[in-house]
Amino acid sequence: MSGPTVLGIDFGGTKIALATATAGGRLLHRRTLETRAGDGARAAIERTLTAARRLIEETGEHPVAVGVSTFGVVQGARVVLAPNVPGWEEQPLPHLLEEGLEMPALLDNDVNAAAAAEVRWGRLAGVGVGLYVNVGTGLGAGIVVDGRVLRGANGAAGEIGYSLSSPAQPGHAAGRAPLEEYASGSGLAQRGTQLLGRNVTAAELFALRDDPRVAGLLDEALDKLGMAVANLAIALDADRVVLGGGMAAEPSLAARLGASLTAAVPFPPEVELARFTGDASLMGALALALDAKPP
Amino acid sequence: MSGPTVLGIDFGGTKIALATATAGGRLLHRRTLETRAGDGARAAIERTLTAARRLIEETGEHPVAVGVSTFGVVQGARVVLAPNVPGWEEQPLPHLLEEGLEMPALLDNDVNAAAAAEVRWGRLAGVGVGLYVNVGTGLGAGIVVDGRVLRGANGAAGEIGYSLSSPAQPGHAAGRAPLEEYASGSGLAQRGTQLLGRNVTAAELFALRDDPRVAGLLDEALDKLGMAVANLAIALDADRVVLGGGMAAEPSLAARLGASLTAAVPFPPEVELARFTGDASLMGALALALDAKPP
Repeated sequence: MSGPTVLGIDFGGTKIALATATAGGRLLHRRTLETRAGDGARAAIERTLTAARRLIEETGEHPVAVGVSTFGVVQGARVVLAPNVPGWEEQPLPHLLEEGLEMPALLDNDVNAAAAAEVRWGRLAGVGVGLYVNVGTGLGAGIVVDGRVLRGANGAAGEIGYSLSSPAQPGHAAGRAPLEEYASGSGLAQRGTQLLGRNVTAAELFALRDDPRVAGLLDEALDKLGMAVANLAIALDADRVVLGGGMAAEPSLAARLGASLTAAVPFPPEVELARFTGDASLMGALALALDAKPP
Repeated sequence: MSGPTVLGIDFGGTKIALATATAGGRLLHRRTLETRAGDGARAAIERTLTAARRLIEETGEHPVAVGVSTFGVVQGARVVLAPNVPGWEEQPLPHLLEEGLEMPALLDNDVNAAAAAEVRWGRLAGVGVGLYVNVGTGLGAGIVVDGRVLRGANGAAGEIGYSLSSPAQPGHAAGRAPLEEYASGSGLAQRGTQLLGRNVTAAELFALRDDPRVAGLLDEALDKLGMAVANLAIALDADRVVLGGGMAAEPSLAARLGASLTAAVPFPPEVELARFTGDASLMGALALALDAKPP
């Protein structure tokens, strides 16, 4: 084994993935645990630490740092806006990881982490101003300037699910996330289920777009998403927009987004699909580990 | 005289301002010329160079660099999107200034320059993620991250006048600047003039808001501006929004903007008025000079 290795931990609402990798991003070993949200945050973290220590012991590796991707918004020593797992917001996650694993830790939310992986090994490498747009169950973005993912004043940069599509929409203060309600996988599924009177997923909706009602619902969602991304590309004067998340592979998404950008942005950025899809936030955690500073 | 001095040149559509200042931003001497757009770009630049050399000679100062604020979008060696003065886009402005004044030059557009002045001496000093919003004859923004004004892939970052307020609006590709048409001074004046059937300025419209038609027009404009700034504050997770430009002093503007931010942004930034108003882009030119690198 040549060169240092790093450890990545990806906390998700249902699963927790761990992996080690080389600095070049080659995966060495990986493990997956159930999150068991019902057992609470502390239990999930303890089981993760145990699994990480065992992975290190079994493989004989000596990771120099751990990178962590988590749901929620990473704000200094805490993760906020993380209702998925009860108690998550009370845990001093960076501290628990650094102490528990005896190595430097760097945390960010899953979308920013995925953006960091695209910067380091994927479609945002060498891009001056880039936008990673994740359309999955939720909706979020990572804003990349000169190779760094913008964290913002409160760790909440890129939370475009809260964007308004019209001035009169109720927004965050009213407990809403207006764009996410339209243009995320969960938002589409919920609106499609209401429309059709039966449970449908976002993927099923795309397959049903011969139904004009479904086409209308999808068009409205993609129009709003296109406007939000175009306005952000205008403001940032982005070189490139990278689409990630479970819905990125839906061909109409990239095409519609490209059309929105061409129509609205003075210097339209190119649209590319993310390199990392299923493993995006785990690869992101590994990318973060490489950015972690020694204590 | 202790410490180095710098030269600032502010190219406007009707006037060109020159000044020298200390590194602390204290103005030493200033001159103003007419732009005389009709005489073309080359003549305006030549007269400016002559005036700058005379200013230096008369004052016995030795500026170490020149900062330049200009209309348009500064893109490497050229200024694009600058229709105000015929021929402006053909002039290699940075080169002409460096050669003509024999000192390093740094150029940016007037709004980014004004943002740089707020970063160095004003309301964005020490702010991690800031947004300078200029509501004057035109509409534009400067995005500040870690003390630097974002330039973007093509020097066009912050050109929020092109933002859409609804997905169906014709945008830049259709020759439009949708938000600027609503929420800039010139846009308000034009729409107000149409509404009332007589020539009115934006300032007059604010004075006429007892007229429900005028109130409706202003409300619509401020709603759209509020949405655009809120969406940008969400995406950037900004600490602070600074309002500049001729309309910034209109009290309803800051109040309405603050309300839009509070309603929509998870971590609402504070709203402050710019320190620099009438002299904003000249002070910006001086701030740029201090960032200019030796050749």
